[in-house]
Amino acid sequence: MKTTPFNYIGKPHLRIDGVAKVTGDAQYTDDIHLPGTLVGKMLRSPHAHALIRNIDVSKALALPGVKAIVLGKDAPILFGILPRAEDENALAIDKVRYVGEPVAGVAAFDERTALEALKLIEVEYELLPAILDPHEALTREDVKIHHFSEVANIERRATLEFGNVDEGFAAADYIREDTFYKGAITHAPIETHVALANYRDGKMTLWTTTQVPHYVHKALSRVLEMPMDRIRVIKPTLGGGFGGKGEPFSFEFVACLLSRKCGRPVKIVHTREEVFMTHRGRHPMHMKLRTGVKKDGTITALEFHNLLDGGSYGSYGLVTLYYSGQLLTLPYILPAYRFDGVRVFTNKPACGALRGHGGVGPRFAFEVHLDRIAADLGLDPLEIRQKNSLKANTMTLNDLRITSCGFEECLEKAGKAIGWEEKRGKLPRGRGVGLAGGGYVSGANNAIYFNPMPHSSVNISVDRGGGVTVFCGASDIGQGSDTMLALVAGEILGISPALIRVISADTDTTPVDLGSYSSRVTFMAGNACRTAALAVREKIGSVVAAQLGVPKESVVIADGIVSGQGYAGMSFTFAQAVVLAESQGMALYASGGYTPPKLGGKYRGAGVGPSPAYSFGAHAAEVQVDEETGIVTVLRLVAAHDLGRTLNPLAAEGQVEGAVANGLGEVLMESHTNTGSGQHSCPSLLEYKIPTMLDLPDIEPILVESFDPEGPFGAKECGEGSLGPSIPAVVNAIYDAVGIWLHDAPITPEAVLAALKKERMR
Amino acid sequence: MKTTPFNYIGKPHLRIDGVAKVTGDAQYTDDIHLPGTLVGKMLRSPHAHALIRNIDVSKALALPGVKAIVLGKDAPILFGILPRAEDENALAIDKVRYVGEPVAGVAAFDERTALEALKLIEVEYELLPAILDPHEALTREDVKIHHFSEVANIERRATLEFGNVDEGFAAADYIREDTFYKGAITHAPIETHVALANYRDGKMTLWTTTQVPHYVHKALSRVLEMPMDRIRVIKPTLGGGFGGKGEPFSFEFVACLLSRKCGRPVKIVHTREEVFMTHRGRHPMHMKLRTGVKKDGTITALEFHNLLDGGSYGSYGLVTLYYSGQLLTLPYILPAYRFDGVRVFTNKPACGALRGHGGVGPRFAFEVHLDRIAADLGLDPLEIRQKNSLKANTMTLNDLRITSCGFEECLEKAGKAIGWEEKRGKLPRGRGVGLAGGGYVSGANNAIYFNPMPHSSVNISVDRGGGVTVFCGASDIGQGSDTMLALVAGEILGISPALIRVISADTDTTPVDLGSYSSRVTFMAGNACRTAALAVREKIGSVVAAQLGVPKESVVIADGIVSGQGYAGMSFTFAQAVVLAESQGMALYASGGYTPPKLGGKYRGAGVGPSPAYSFGAHAAEVQVDEETGIVTVLRLVAAHDLGRTLNPLAAEGQVEGAVANGLGEVLMESHTNTGSGQHSCPSLLEYKIPTMLDLPDIEPILVESFDPEGPFGAKECGEGSLGPSIPAVVNAIYDAVGIWLHDAPITPEAVLAALKKERMR
Repeated sequence: MKTTPFNYIGKPHLRIDGVAKVTGDAQYTDDIHLPGTLVGKMLRSPHAHALIRNIDVSKALALPGVKAIVLGKDAPILFGILPRAEDENALAIDKVRYVGEPVAGVAAFDERTALEALKLIEVEYELLPAILDPHEALTREDVKIHHFSEVANIERRATLEFGNVDEGFAAADYIREDTFYKGAITHAPIETHVALANYRDGKMTLWTTTQVPHYVHKALSRVLEMPMDRIRVIKPTLGGGFGGKGEPFSFEFVACLLSRKCGRPVKIVHTREEVFMTHRGRHPMHMKLRTGVKKDGTITALEFHNLLDGGSYGSYGLVTLYYSGQLLTLPYILPAYRFDGVRVFTNKPACGALRGHGGVGPRFAFEVHLDRIAADLGLDPLEIRQKNSLKANTMTLNDLRITSCGFEECLEKAGKAIGWEEKRGKLPRGRGVGLAGGGYVSGANNAIYFNPMPHSSVNISVDRGGGVTVFCGASDIGQGSDTMLALVAGEILGISPALIRVISADTDTTPVDLGSYSSRVTFMAGNACRTAALAVREKIGSVVAAQLGVPKESVVIADGIVSGQGYAGMSFTFAQAVVLAESQGMALYASGGYTPPKLGGKYRGAGVGPSPAYSFGAHAAEVQVDEETGIVTVLRLVAAHDLGRTLNPLAAEGQVEGAVANGLGEVLMESHTNTGSGQHSCPSLLEYKIPTMLDLPDIEPILVESFDPEGPFGAKECGEGSLGPSIPAVVNAIYDAVGIWLHDAPITPEAVLAALKKERMR
Repeated sequence: MKTTPFNYIGKPHLRIDGVAKVTGDAQYTDDIHLPGTLVGKMLRSPHAHALIRNIDVSKALALPGVKAIVLGKDAPILFGILPRAEDENALAIDKVRYVGEPVAGVAAFDERTALEALKLIEVEYELLPAILDPHEALTREDVKIHHFSEVANIERRATLEFGNVDEGFAAADYIREDTFYKGAITHAPIETHVALANYRDGKMTLWTTTQVPHYVHKALSRVLEMPMDRIRVIKPTLGGGFGGKGEPFSFEFVACLLSRKCGRPVKIVHTREEVFMTHRGRHPMHMKLRTGVKKDGTITALEFHNLLDGGSYGSYGLVTLYYSGQLLTLPYILPAYRFDGVRVFTNKPACGALRGHGGVGPRFAFEVHLDRIAADLGLDPLEIRQKNSLKANTMTLNDLRITSCGFEECLEKAGKAIGWEEKRGKLPRGRGVGLAGGGYVSGANNAIYFNPMPHSSVNISVDRGGGVTVFCGASDIGQGSDTMLALVAGEILGISPALIRVISADTDTTPVDLGSYSSRVTFMAGNACRTAALAVREKIGSVVAAQLGVPKESVVIADGIVSGQGYAGMSFTFAQAVVLAESQGMALYASGGYTPPKLGGKYRGAGVGPSPAYSFGAHAAEVQVDEETGIVTVLRLVAAHDLGRTLNPLAAEGQVEGAVANGLGEVLMESHTNTGSGQHSCPSLLEYKIPTMLDLPDIEPILVESFDPEGPFGAKECGEGSLGPSIPAVVNAIYDAVGIWLHDAPITPEAVLAALKKERMR
C-alpha cells in the first residue's frame, strides 16, 4: 500500500454507529413504537400453485380486536423492482404461485388475535399442477405460472454475442465443455423483515427494513395510488441485508394498506419462517460452458448457456440473467464470447439479488472449468489465469470499460500467500490448494428506472459550532456506508470522521441515493459526498483566504485547523472558519451529486458496460478432505481483492472476510430447497446451516490497490466481488487434494464420497 | 383585509403537527425511550439563603441502584442566558440563593431509588438572612446575594434619557404622578421541563424541552467543557413554553453530567412543584410614572422609574430591564422621556422572560396612568390615545425605527367593536368599558451574544418525488412556527403547506435559528424561509423555462403546477419540474438566511432600536363588577392587533386569544408569591390559578394589517404584544364600572372591595 498524504483515508476507523449498536441505542425498525400500534399479520398460501376461488373474511372480521383486513383486490396495481418485470401484487388476487405467498393481511390489537383471525379467513383454492423444476418449466405449455410467458414458463431469454465465436473455436487447439449446477442459498440476515406504517392526515410514513428506500418510495406511490410527496420512507438501523431487503415487498404494502384502512399505525414483523418464504435469494443456475484455448492456455472463444430458476416472480431476475452473461468475462480477455441465458418461472419463492448478484454461479462454473482445462493441458492454474488476465485501461469485447485493474497483482499475492509454488500438487493426499479469480461491478451505470438524474446526491450542512452533518439517501445495511460517508467528508474537511454526523436513508430528509445493491454505495455516494465536501471546503477556503489575506490556494484544513499554508501563525479553528462563512448571510451548506459517465458504447447505448468501474480478485484456498466422511475442511482462505483504494482497512477487511464466510457457507453448507409439494425444506436457522465463527477457517484478506481514476480517492467495490472466487477456489483445492471434480454446489459430504467412489472405480 | 394574489397566505391552515398531537404520534421529550435509561433527580435547597458547608453523598452512593451523583464542583463554570450575566452554576457550589435551588443530582435505576438517595445526601447549611423584598435588596449592604453587586443587591441600573425632559415638563399644562405594582406570574406550561441526556462515544445528545436549542448548545459546550461539534441538542415536540423554557437550565446540565459520569442515558422529568421552583417568570415591578401633558392631552414629557425584583439570578433580567424602559414608549409619540430602572437580586427563584417580556408591567402602569390623566382632564381615553399615536415610517425619540404602524386602526376598530361611543360612562353602575394600547418587538436586532451571523437560516431540500422539506433551527413551542415555515415555503413553491415537511430545532440537522423568544420567529425564520424558497423557485424556474423555451419571468408555480404564464399548454407538475432540476446533476436544494438590518442609529450602534419591526394593538374590555363580593367578570375582550400581514388567520387568532387569556389570568387571578421564609405559596396548578375556558369571556380578535415592508409577506409579531393591553383595559373598565382606580395587579376581590370602601369614604 502506497503511503498517502491523507489524514484519515487508509487508516482503520471504527464504524460511526458501532457504539449505538453495542449499547442498544440504535433503533431498529422493531424498536420504534408509536402509541396505538396494531399488529399486522399475513395469511399465506399453503399451496405452490392454485387459483383463488373465494376469500371469506367475515368470521375473521367479527373477531373482537380485529381492526382491518386487506385483500389483493384492495391494491390491484402490479409492482416489481424492475419496471420491465412488474408482475407482483401486494396480496395475491386470483392465483397463488408459491407456498407462502400472502393472500390477506390482518391488523389486530395483539399478535394472538391477529393469528387467530388468520385462521378464520376462509380461502377457497382450486389446485393447479406445480412446476418446481426449471427444465420442466421450459416446456410445460399446459401450465402457465404467468399468462404473459410467450413460451411455456420462460420469463426472458437473453442472447449476447461478441467477436466471431465460431472462428474462435476453429482457432482453438483444445475445446472443453462442462456443465455445472449452482444451487440456491438465501440471505439469512439476523434481523427479519419488519415494517411499521403510519397513515395520518393523508400522508403515509413507512419505517422499513429496506436496502432501497427510494425504490420502495416509488413503488408505494404506485401501488397505494398516492403521490410520492405524501409518502415518507425511513430505513432505521438495519440488521443485515445481503440483497434480501433490496426490493419492495408485499409486507411493506400490506402494512401501509392496513394502516390506511384503520387509521392507526400497523407493524408487521416477519417470523424467521416468513423470511425464508420471502426469499429472493440466489438463483439456482444450470450452466453449460464451452471454451476453446490454444495449447498455452490462451482463450480463443467461450460459449455459455445458463438456465436460471427464477421462482414465481420476476424480482431482479432480468438483471441476474444479464449480469450472469456479462460479468462472466471478468477478469479475462476473451476474443469471442457467446451467451445464451433463459430465466424461467417455477412455483417457488422468487429468486432475486444476493451478495455477488449474478456473478457467483457463473464464476464458480468458469473457474472450475478453467482449472479443468489447465489440468487437461498440463498447465498451472495460476499461470493460465495470468496469461488471460485483463489489463487496466482497456475495453473488453463485451463492452466493459476497464479503468483500473489489479487482477494480476491479486493473483500474484494470493498465490504467494497460500504458498502456491510449494504446495500445489505437492501436499499429502487429502490436502490441497486451489485458486480462482473474479471481478465485479462498482455500481450499475443505469438506475433501475431509466432517468438522467444523479445516482447519488449528498447534502452537507455545517453547524456554526463546527458540527458537520452529511445527508444522503444511502442505506446503511450493516456494510458501513454511513461510516464511509463520514470518512470521505472528514478527509476533505480535515475533521475526524468520528465527529461527522450522517443522516441517511430517509426520503424526507435525505437526497436520493438509489440504494444498497450492486456494490454501488462507496463508489457513487462516496463520489457525491466528495463533491459536496469539496464545495464546503471551497466556501470555507474563500472566506478564510479573504480574512487572512492569503491566496485561496494556500488554504488547507487539517485536524480541525484551517490555515494558510506557508503563512505562519495564520489559522482558525474549523468552527471559527465556519462562523466566518456563516457571517456571509446564511448557514454553511453544499450539495454534490454523482452520475455515472455516459460515454456512449455499443451495448444499450446508456453507458459503457454495466458499471463505471470493476473490482477484481483472486482467492486461494487450502483444504483438507476427509475421504472417510466426505467432509471438506477449509484450512485457510486467502482473498486478494482489488478495491481500487482502501478507504478504511478495518471496514474493507471486514467486508472481504464477510464475503468469504458467505462464499464458504455457500460452497459447503447452505442450501435453500423445497420439497416436492413446494414446501420449504428447512425454513429455520436451526435447519438452514450458515457458518458460525467456529466453522470458518483463517480468512486472510489482502487489499490490493489499483487507484481507480473515477472512484472516490480511487476506491471501487469491495464487499460483493470478494465472495465469488471463494467457491471455485475451494472446489479446485478439493481436486488438488483428492483428484475429484465437483460440478454441483453446495459440495455435500455425500457428493464428495460419491465422486471419490466414482474416481476409484475409473 | 386586502385581497391578495396569494394561494395560501391569508387563508386558515391547520397546524401541520396537529394530527400527530391529537393521535399521540407526537413525541414529547418524555416519550423518548432509550434502553437502559436512568432516572435523574435533583436535591434542592430548603433554604432561601444559606452557605453550603459540606455535602456528604457517601450514604446515597452506597444505596443499591444509585449509579451516579454529581455536585456543583463537577461543573464549576458559570452560565447564564446573557453573556453579561453569567452567574449560575449547574448545581450550587458554596451557597444557595433560593428555596429549590439544586445542590446535587442523582441517577438511579428507578424513581423511588433516586428519591431515596436524595434523602440520604447530607448537606450542611449555614443559614444567611434571606432578602425577599426588592426595596430591602436595594439597601442591605450587609447581606450580599451575589458578591459582584457593587451597591447592596443591585444587579444593574439602567438610565435612558431622550429629548429635554425638564423642558417637556415645563411646557406641560398638567403633570400627574402615579405608582403601580405589577406582581409576578409564572408560565405554567402543561408539559413540565424534561431532559434526556445520552453521552456516548465522546459525544453528548440532549433531548430537552427548550425554546432555544442553539443557546443550550452553546451553554452545554461551555459548562461541560466539550466542543460544540460533539454535542447535539434536540427539541422534541414541546408542550408550551411562554418564555419559561427560554434559557439553559440546571436540569439540562445535570442530566448531561450524570450521563457522562455513568455512561448511560439519564432522564430528568420535573414535577410540577419543580417547575414552580425553576420559574423565570414575570418580574414583579414597582413603578413610578410622571407625565406632563397639554390640556388637549398631548404628552410633553414622561419619566419612568422601575424597580424590578429579579430573584436570585440574572437570567434574562437585563433585557427585561431594558425592554421595560425602551418599549414603554410604544405606541405613543413622546417628545421627551427619561427612564431610570434598577434590577435587584432577592432570595427567590430568578425571574426571566414571559410572554410580552419586559413590556407587560410598564404597559399596565402607563395605560392606567394615561386613563387617569384623561379622567383628570375630562378627555376621552380613546381620543387621548389617538392624539398621541405613533405613525408609520417614523423614528421614535428613543431610536425605535417604526416601519409599519397600524395603531390608529387598532384603536378605531377596538373602540367600534366594544361600542365605545355608546357605552363609555353610559352603562349601569357595576358595568363598564375600558381601553388600552400597546406595542411589541418582532424579534431582537441583536442576538444574545453579539455576532454577525444570520439570526435564522433555512435549508430547503426537495425530493425528486416533489416532496419539500424545510430545515430550520426554529423551535416550535406550540405557537406553530413549524406551520408558519410550511406556509411560507408552500406559498412560494405553489404547494399546499399541509404537504410541506418541516424538520426543526435539532442542532445536528437544522441550521441555527436563535430560538423562540422576543416574538422573532415569524419575522426572522419566516424571512429566511422565504429567501430559501425563492432560491428553490429560481432553480426550478430556470430549468423549466429552458425546457419549455419560454422566458424565465413567465414561469409560475401554483397548485403543484409549473407553467409558462401566457404560454398555453406548457406545464409540468412540480415533481416533474424537480426531476428536470435534479437532472442538472444534483438534488434540488437551497438555503436562505435572515440578518436584521444594521442601519446604524444612536442607541448601542448595533441596529436601530431593539427590533426590525413593531406590532401594535388596542384592546377594549367590558366588565361587570360585583360590589358585594368584589369579583370582576370580564364580559367581552376585543383585541385589535396590528400583525403586519395575517399569514394564517387561524393561527393568528389563536395567538391573540391565547395572549388575552394569559393577560386576563394575569390581571384577575395569577399570582406567584413566596412565604416569609421564601417557600412558594402555591406550587401546584390546584393552588396557582390560571383561567380555564370556563373562566374566559368571549375574546374577539381583530387582525389589523399594516403590511410591514421588511416582514415576510409583510408580517410582524402577533403572540406577545397582544397580551399587554388586556390588563389595563380591564383595570380601566373597572373604573368605568364603579369609579375606582386599582394600581396593583393582580386585582383581587379583596382589593376591589377595599378600593370601593375607600371610594365610598371619600
